[in-house]
Amino acid sequence: MDRSLQGLAGAPEWRSLQSMLPDLRGARVLDLGCGFGWFSRWARERGAQSVLGFDVSENMLKRAIEMTTDDAVVYRRVDVEQIELPEAAFDLVFSSLVLHYVENLNRVFRSIHRALVPGGWFVFSTEHPIYTAPSHPEWLIQNGGCRTWPVDQYLAEGPRVTDWLTKEVIKQHRTIGTMVNSLLRSGFSLTHLEEWGPTEDQIAAHPEWAEHRDRPMFLLVSARKQV
Amino acid sequence: MDRSLQGLAGAPEWRSLQSMLPDLRGARVLDLGCGFGWFSRWARERGAQSVLGFDVSENMLKRAIEMTTDDAVVYRRVDVEQIELPEAAFDLVFSSLVLHYVENLNRVFRSIHRALVPGGWFVFSTEHPIYTAPSHPEWLIQNGGCRTWPVDQYLAEGPRVTDWLTKEVIKQHRTIGTMVNSLLRSGFSLTHLEEWGPTEDQIAAHPEWAEHRDRPMFLLVSARKQV
Repeated sequence: MDRSLQGLAGAPEWRSLQSMLPDLRGARVLDLGCGFGWFSRWARERGAQSVLGFDVSENMLKRAIEMTTDDAVVYRRVDVEQIELPEAAFDLVFSSLVLHYVENLNRVFRSIHRALVPGGWFVFSTEHPIYTAPSHPEWLIQNGGCRTWPVDQYLAEGPRVTDWLTKEVIKQHRTIGTMVNSLLRSGFSLTHLEEWGPTEDQIAAHPEWAEHRDRPMFLLVSARKQV
Repeated sequence: MDRSLQGLAGAPEWRSLQSMLPDLRGARVLDLGCGFGWFSRWARERGAQSVLGFDVSENMLKRAIEMTTDDAVVYRRVDVEQIELPEAAFDLVFSSLVLHYVENLNRVFRSIHRALVPGGWFVFSTEHPIYTAPSHPEWLIQNGGCRTWPVDQYLAEGPRVTDWLTKEVIKQHRTIGTMVNSLLRSGFSLTHLEEWGPTEDQIAAHPEWAEHRDRPMFLLVSARKQV
């Protein structure tokens, strides 16, 4: 996994996600699903006042702590599903590729909204529902070698079991509409929504990313707590 | 076409779209792509003060005029692509299944924004990008009879040529992200986004609609001009 080993530069969607972030100078940041802490450390380099990194994986947190020499970055073992956050304590909540594992998204969105200051930002990426929907999430190769992504059960929200890294990973498939409406109901204003695809430059450097133009894999969202 | 002959009741997504509309009493309404005028007349029944129906088809407008006996509903032949609207003249702009034909969506969104009063509503439906994206937009029937929608070139926005009613209809494929960001840049706040699918009741009455749960055909959006 490039994104774990190489950090942010190994994540193809990072450039887009980065452009959706507010100015981090002086910001109090929560990194929800921090993994090895790549974003947490980057946020500090960009001037964040403090960063709290949450992850459920003890192994990842261990590695994150080893890689961090900065008292203003603090890691904690927390299951996103169970978060309890202080009120108006953060200027930015960031979450990369974690929310598609969460069952009760409404609860998490409400918790994040409450934890942000008015005008605070929530920027996240999640797997795109076109990617998570199919009962057989694998490219079909058609006559002539063209690839086709086999969409079905798009509106049947709920768990999807796939094999990924370890066996039997359960993801929660949700439509874009469900995610957006949950944000709006929680009191957020939507500020940007991107169905990420690689640029021409990126495809030249990584031809294997071209498939993401046929079928987006990531959904990037920024939202703001109304003032 | 049920939706042309039977009016609003013949459009499966109408119930959802209706629930996204504001109170119409006293409202000045613009119906962009009014067709036979079903929505224009319905808006008047619901108490709209005046309704302006625009369509590019002379035949449809002729029929709309024949079916309307109400001086507060006025129809005009206008190409949506070319609209010129007065400033702050409408409380609601409604548009059903027309915007996927528009090439310059940014211009249309800006015109609509300017034409609305502060706090005014823009409610529209358009074909869903999952529906418009494919190079071969037809169900694949897999082993066991399961249907699969063959998504490719999702991020390649631009014209799609299909055969529909007449030959060689050109639609403009755009991602949800592009539409949402264009709305936000025009000064709208997003208030609801729905990837429409039929309810169980609707499928019981119209089993042929079940395919829309596998692959949504319509995107429904409501947005509001910021006060």
